Amino acid sequence: MSREGFIERLEYFSTISTGFIIDYINSRGFETAVKETMLYSVQGGKRLRPALLLGAFSSFSNDSLAAALPFAAAIEMIHTYSLIHDDLPAMDDDDMRRGKPSNHIQFGEAEAILAGDALLNAAAECMLENLVDAGEPGQRASVIIMKAAGAEGMIGGQSLDIAGVHTKQQLKKMYSMKTGALLKASAVAGAVLGGCSHGEEKYIGDFAEHLGFAFQIKDDLLDVSGDSGIMGKPTGSDEGNNKTTIVSLSGIHETEKLLDETAGEALKELRKVEADTWFLQELMKFIDQRKG
Amino acid sequence: MSREGFIERLEYFSTISTGFIIDYINSRGFETAVKETMLYSVQGGKRLRPALLLGAFSSFSNDSLAAALPFAAAIEMIHTYSLIHDDLPAMDDDDMRRGKPSNHIQFGEAEAILAGDALLNAAAECMLENLVDAGEPGQRASVIIMKAAGAEGMIGGQSLDIAGVHTKQQLKKMYSMKTGALLKASAVAGAVLGGCSHGEEKYIGDFAEHLGFAFQIKDDLLDVSGDSGIMGKPTGSDEGNNKTTIVSLSGIHETEKLLDETAGEALKELRKVEADTWFLQELMKFIDQRKG
Repeated sequence: MSREGFIERLEYFSTISTGFIIDYINSRGFETAVKETMLYSVQGGKRLRPALLLGAFSSFSNDSLAAALPFAAAIEMIHTYSLIHDDLPAMDDDDMRRGKPSNHIQFGEAEAILAGDALLNAAAECMLENLVDAGEPGQRASVIIMKAAGAEGMIGGQSLDIAGVHTKQQLKKMYSMKTGALLKASAVAGAVLGGCSHGEEKYIGDFAEHLGFAFQIKDDLLDVSGDSGIMGKPTGSDEGNNKTTIVSLSGIHETEKLLDETAGEALKELRKVEADTWFLQELMKFIDQRKG
Repeated sequence: MSREGFIERLEYFSTISTGFIIDYINSRGFETAVKETMLYSVQGGKRLRPALLLGAFSSFSNDSLAAALPFAAAIEMIHTYSLIHDDLPAMDDDDMRRGKPSNHIQFGEAEAILAGDALLNAAAECMLENLVDAGEPGQRASVIIMKAAGAEGMIGGQSLDIAGVHTKQQLKKMYSMKTGALLKASAVAGAVLGGCSHGEEKYIGDFAEHLGFAFQIKDDLLDVSGDSGIMGKPTGSDEGNNKTTIVSLSGIHETEKLLDETAGEALKELRKVEADTWFLQELMKFIDQRKG
């Protein structure tokens, strides 16, 4: 498949998962004010997690994406809720997100807390409602996703981040939990839904672990050299906040080398998988080269 | 069954659901700091929701409570997370809860937000992991619970509360969403897990709706006349905060009358159910007569 085919496919995954999320929120009897705050934050974003989930699913299954879509939507709702809560004054205190004011700037802190809660709740509800169609793999995929989102994954990582990290080892652990866990879960859940074998599940997991780390390395690099217009949030904030990042610990040159190595490791894992993983390969390269 | 039998049973339900929650949190690989904040808040409390769920389950099934327990634990974790978030400065700003400092007073706002998120996440995870044992009723019960906890139930009600209520009609809607929905879901989920018929599900739902309203009426009454030592939080706070309550709108005398009528309606619904609902009947009377 060509690079053009990849971008087209990436946009397609983004469009259908966004559409599913918006339809889902609109079709419930959600209280109007909460619905509005939820819808505000689910728009925009790169949709990397749905792309990973749907891309992994498609590597193993030629079935319609319909069975995988509720899980892709759920994982993006979880990601979105985490951004809303992380942006709160008591957490990272960020005023801008996805190119517009953060949820609490737009609606106030109380409503932003509730919007986050409601998105996490809706994610679980959405998966539970769609378990029957997805069968036993659906249940396994949901557990993988919720585990990664919880206190042994993403939430635990945010707690480590708040407590403060200082060494490379602490930073790597924090990244692997805060962003890595959910990225890995996206790929593994997609592969499980697609009917991968036990061995393939392991390779996809290892691939996604490297991809998640590469994503974070790239994020740190972009914070010192990226374009804030493309990123939808201010750059240079890590340095301004005296935040420990891979760049602050290793310097730009070493960090760029680490990015290449990590992306290489990710692709190496994919080569162990028999299925056609072209989309996941291209996704790894896309992350490596992204500008924002 | 005697009143003594009821108290014993109530304490038993409380003990096993608390034990399940604590074991559940301890047995996961949760990040230490988050685990601590979660465990801090799940202790104490009346365990009314697990009692409703397990009581309704036992009305319809003589099976071991083991299949229902993960759902009882989940609903209490959801209730606990909602208290942690509601107590935050941006929300109700309450410093005391369950007889001790609120989560954010003890651990700080950021950790309290994460503790709440982690409990909601754990609740969903706990149900998902235990769906297989509970079969199709388990899936239905989980959806009932998550729906009631979300933006068309509890979260929606908290949003209405923040926006402010002024009339009896607004107040009743807010109560039915903020506390009523999850109480109703507890009873209905328990009945569904116990294998109730479609008709019985409706009666149990109507019973629990009245019970939930009675609970809230009693809460408003206790805020003006209760013992803060028994309640584990300050009394008189509604009046101090100029909060609209049933008492502030109707006066104590009318409110007491409304409580009796509502409890009567609840018991009337139970009489339509063929199963032995003695525990639920006693629970309604217990709420009617509670001192804190």
